[in-house]
Amino acid sequence: MATNKSASVKAHPFLTLQPQEVFATAEIIRKVHSEKTVIFRIVAIKEPNRAEAVKYLEAERKKLPLPTVPRRTYVTYQFQGQVDAWEDIVDLDTGSVVESKKLPPGVHPAASQDDMRDVQELVMTDELVLKEIERLKLPAGSKVVPEAWPYGKESRDVDVKQYQIWFFLGSLDEKNLAHPSSNHFAHPLDFSAVVDDLTRKVIRIDRLPMGVGLNSYSTNDEPYQPQTDAEYATELQPSIRKDLKPIHISQPEGVSFTVENDQVINWQKWRFHLDFNWREGTVLRDVTYDGRPVFYRLSLAEMTVPYADPRPPFHRKCAYDLGEGGAGNTANNLALGCDCLGAIRYFTRWVSDAQGRPEVRENCICMHEVDAGIGWKHTNYRNGRAEVTRNRELVIQTIMTISNYEYILIWTLDTAAAIHYEIRATGIMSVVPMRQGVEHDLDYGIMVAPGVMAPSHQHIFSLRLDPAIDGYDDSVIQYEDSVRRPFEPKTNPFGVAYGIEVNPVKHSSFIDLDASRNRIVKFVNDKKTNKVTGKPPGYGIHVPVTQLQLSHPSSTNHRRAGFSDHHYYFTKQSENELYPSGDYPWQSFGGDGVRQWAQRDVELGNAGVAWCNFGFTHNPRPEDWPVMPCEVFRVAIKPSNFFTQNPALDMPASTQVVNKSTLVTGDDQSECCSRSNGVAS
Amino acid sequence: MATNKSASVKAHPFLTLQPQEVFATAEIIRKVHSEKTVIFRIVAIKEPNRAEAVKYLEAERKKLPLPTVPRRTYVTYQFQGQVDAWEDIVDLDTGSVVESKKLPPGVHPAASQDDMRDVQELVMTDELVLKEIERLKLPAGSKVVPEAWPYGKESRDVDVKQYQIWFFLGSLDEKNLAHPSSNHFAHPLDFSAVVDDLTRKVIRIDRLPMGVGLNSYSTNDEPYQPQTDAEYATELQPSIRKDLKPIHISQPEGVSFTVENDQVINWQKWRFHLDFNWREGTVLRDVTYDGRPVFYRLSLAEMTVPYADPRPPFHRKCAYDLGEGGAGNTANNLALGCDCLGAIRYFTRWVSDAQGRPEVRENCICMHEVDAGIGWKHTNYRNGRAEVTRNRELVIQTIMTISNYEYILIWTLDTAAAIHYEIRATGIMSVVPMRQGVEHDLDYGIMVAPGVMAPSHQHIFSLRLDPAIDGYDDSVIQYEDSVRRPFEPKTNPFGVAYGIEVNPVKHSSFIDLDASRNRIVKFVNDKKTNKVTGKPPGYGIHVPVTQLQLSHPSSTNHRRAGFSDHHYYFTKQSENELYPSGDYPWQSFGGDGVRQWAQRDVELGNAGVAWCNFGFTHNPRPEDWPVMPCEVFRVAIKPSNFFTQNPALDMPASTQVVNKSTLVTGDDQSECCSRSNGVAS
Repeated sequence: MATNKSASVKAHPFLTLQPQEVFATAEIIRKVHSEKTVIFRIVAIKEPNRAEAVKYLEAERKKLPLPTVPRRTYVTYQFQGQVDAWEDIVDLDTGSVVESKKLPPGVHPAASQDDMRDVQELVMTDELVLKEIERLKLPAGSKVVPEAWPYGKESRDVDVKQYQIWFFLGSLDEKNLAHPSSNHFAHPLDFSAVVDDLTRKVIRIDRLPMGVGLNSYSTNDEPYQPQTDAEYATELQPSIRKDLKPIHISQPEGVSFTVENDQVINWQKWRFHLDFNWREGTVLRDVTYDGRPVFYRLSLAEMTVPYADPRPPFHRKCAYDLGEGGAGNTANNLALGCDCLGAIRYFTRWVSDAQGRPEVRENCICMHEVDAGIGWKHTNYRNGRAEVTRNRELVIQTIMTISNYEYILIWTLDTAAAIHYEIRATGIMSVVPMRQGVEHDLDYGIMVAPGVMAPSHQHIFSLRLDPAIDGYDDSVIQYEDSVRRPFEPKTNPFGVAYGIEVNPVKHSSFIDLDASRNRIVKFVNDKKTNKVTGKPPGYGIHVPVTQLQLSHPSSTNHRRAGFSDHHYYFTKQSENELYPSGDYPWQSFGGDGVRQWAQRDVELGNAGVAWCNFGFTHNPRPEDWPVMPCEVFRVAIKPSNFFTQNPALDMPASTQVVNKSTLVTGDDQSECCSRSNGVAS
Repeated sequence: MATNKSASVKAHPFLTLQPQEVFATAEIIRKVHSEKTVIFRIVAIKEPNRAEAVKYLEAERKKLPLPTVPRRTYVTYQFQGQVDAWEDIVDLDTGSVVESKKLPPGVHPAASQDDMRDVQELVMTDELVLKEIERLKLPAGSKVVPEAWPYGKESRDVDVKQYQIWFFLGSLDEKNLAHPSSNHFAHPLDFSAVVDDLTRKVIRIDRLPMGVGLNSYSTNDEPYQPQTDAEYATELQPSIRKDLKPIHISQPEGVSFTVENDQVINWQKWRFHLDFNWREGTVLRDVTYDGRPVFYRLSLAEMTVPYADPRPPFHRKCAYDLGEGGAGNTANNLALGCDCLGAIRYFTRWVSDAQGRPEVRENCICMHEVDAGIGWKHTNYRNGRAEVTRNRELVIQTIMTISNYEYILIWTLDTAAAIHYEIRATGIMSVVPMRQGVEHDLDYGIMVAPGVMAPSHQHIFSLRLDPAIDGYDDSVIQYEDSVRRPFEPKTNPFGVAYGIEVNPVKHSSFIDLDASRNRIVKFVNDKKTNKVTGKPPGYGIHVPVTQLQLSHPSSTNHRRAGFSDHHYYFTKQSENELYPSGDYPWQSFGGDGVRQWAQRDVELGNAGVAWCNFGFTHNPRPEDWPVMPCEVFRVAIKPSNFFTQNPALDMPASTQVVNKSTLVTGDDQSECCSRSNGVAS
């Protein structure tokens, strides 16, 4: 692994966080504050200045001497027993703190995974919690399981950092309880605890509403009502399908990609840096195709998960799973599961812990090739001759587990020079208790079991797209509408014409998509021209139109999720503006994010960034319980005038000689015949 | 193969067309009209009456004696030398014509593939065409290639059936020309011919516009300007990628499906009839899951492809690729190409020719299983234990080639009880000539090569969904909107609440989707209740909101494509209303289709059918030339309250023992290491 500690080795500006850089940063911070006990929240690479990084990339391309880009980390920390939090920027080359700022009161750093574990541990010995557990008169052998959530904001008041702890009960069935995947989420209890981060004390118990209305709180003599087990572990199912025959995917001649230094990927004319951080998870940098830049930086920048249940304290359920939890912090070890078929390359990356030590995220990214069906085909019907090629995708996957829920986050590149971003939402829905034995006529959720209610909610995501269309500094943004032309005798006498209206995005702003206009946002290089079409080379973003923030515009949820009210925001590139709900969403009240950046109304010139916002409105189904089948969403980013012809024209023909498919013949048979297909085109 | 000729064998009402049934029908028609020469257009199975078929299905389910459902075909035909066309219904059991109607003047049957070939042949000896070819003074060795299209309607006048023939030139490069896939579409010529179907004569030459404006027609001395070759055959590419390593997909233990009588498929609790006809291609009938009916009939019912080029005669370009051409008539022999990876079952089906003979469509449907990624996953973050299953899809694919263009039409069923419909649009865009050496500032298309223009166009599809939600006759239709609730102190004091508005569809009607309301159309069984949620079992249709018909509402294109102006039409079930632009779109003027059926405003009761309409607005890119990478579109049809829990909960765990994936290790390597992943969950 390369290090950057020696002056003779220049770190590539996109080198992913190295473990020794976490140690080095912590050491520098501790040295500055040697009199205090430092608690680290985050140590991560400070995004390099784009202009400086581009100089490096240009020199690299031209094989010129490489300029030095300062190697910096940012670090958020607090001092033991003190409420204030700090954010410093550390220059690793000089070993010095180059910027230090105290966060304003009420601005709170994200929790590390250590923090979450600690809080969950401490509540179980807290008096107030123990009293609640005692009140419930739980059966002998009951195991109470706490789940810590960030605390949602409800007013403008400056508040100390808090956690909201929900409580669940482990299965009362010994066999189920003993299973490592036993599902305590099936048994929500009727109270929650609020923890002060500084004192690490429960400051309040919130009784939960148990009926439809807002004031239906659990009472002091609310009896404990056992809920049915809802186990998802395959080993705990009454029966498992026996008739699903295996599918094997193999690459007998090896894979088509190469990896340099564990981070630069070359595959099918694509080349990019595979970066990773605690917050965004996988980040693609300097994405080029056939040597031509396409994107400077691609990442999922934020998501918000507002819940529709209006009953306090559930109105506070509004998670920022990236900014509060972190797609990197919560990334699964993919080799542990069996998350891909085929020939898989895993990547290990690093985050940080509360002691300022590197914490490994082993196999947190997996990469493999997927046959994605027919790429293109044409049959000459006169002679039956078919020309057909496959589409191949390179899949780069991270899976985050945020308490009960999973997001499978996937970047793909394909052999037709397109990029896709895919989200698969799965895991266990967040549920709350309801009184049993009464009918609940609910507007904001459904009962998934007696006493268990799954509230309606949304997941709204924000993709940050920093373009480099055929050059690092020449991308402008426009959106194109397909519009009906008027019935006009001289130009459109039969009323069939439609045309494309091109709208340049000149200033920081927002727009909404409009399916009735087939609105597409494009990045184009305004310095170049496609020699066939005469149009500027570009990439267009094809994203289904989805519902945006349903919370009321004057609600805290709406205010905090600055990106969630429009399908696109456009802002000026800045290494300090990476997260659309601001750097610190934990208990934020909004006011720092794309909504504000866009309001500056600055000229974007050739330095605009697009924030593409989309979501799922998840109205629970019983079919989503106790674990939900993946909900799949895909964004396509496709070349448009970037090439002079189909870039997949040079794909090899799809032939039986290569494919080695097998023919299944006859009726009532479930065996695969070994006779080969035979006819190769 | 089963036959229905003997009274002792009752044909299943969903038995797909048998070749002997084509012969039998033609014989009956010829006998009735023994004095005339009959030219057959179509012989196909007459859709059985739903109530009668349902009686049969219910008896089948209960293992009761099976009632007889009349086995009938419909046949369209003309008499040699006569303009009139007829549609008869033939009862095969009695060997008699049970209905016979003369089509009204101006209503034209679809062309058979024979017709298209004949017309293309005859124009090449026609005087008017030869004169045009002579005018062009083409280089020696030139090969002119005619392409017949249906003739688009432009007025209310009753007209005889016509064809519009476009002309192209084969490559002037001998090597390219000799290749069986040589692309004549790269060389559009500057005239077209209109052919009268009855006389089989060219009745008019239409010179094509060669400039931007409407009156820029090719002149008498318009010089022939050679266009560059644009070959798509892999063998004709200057170079082909060498670094794409094969992917093999195998099912060493065989496939998971069984097939009864070449048409009933059993797979993963699904069971359905795999029907096929000349028009809709694949039709799924009596689709059940775990013995419970879900859909009575599923098909792609129509598509319209209006072009935006306003210049006559291009204003007439508006294809109905199903109603005029037929997804079955034009279906590819899939075994000839290499259209799938894995273990593939092919199905052969039948259409008819002009002599009333069966015409085989060999391997026109292929079916195979696909690993569709993670099905569901949850990781217990406390111990790192992951439970993960795969999603498996059964893919049923037909590919149609309609002159220059291909549609890959796919039904999938999955292991989470969802159905998907997927369209992949590929093939060669329809292009027209433009004068070379001048700049063309085009509103309605782009230049893809000097002298070659690809016009903007739309593909608008209509899926016909006839539900049988947990019972054949108990499905009602509703649509659900997710809507913000008002900020209200007693019910929504923090403004976070949203709720679901359920709107029953009681009458034949239409609606549009609205992403801002997350509108979902659902079929639900109003006689049953999900015992967990208290809600009726149903299936919801999840379709991205797309742009609808751009042609002007008073244009012929808009009038004819009755389905294309709204996202959904709802009509009452009828075996006589299967095609949303009417039975006979060829030169239709509209007035017979879902728009009219919906206007009847009849009560749907439990007998409603939904027509789900969606489309691509295809504004050509140079990247789509000379053959376009697949444009992929997916509709999801998912259970909602149909089950009491995740129906994929009983899927086997995804383990390395079964998957046998391989680990790729190290840097700069392109070989797949044989070391196994090792860790199985």
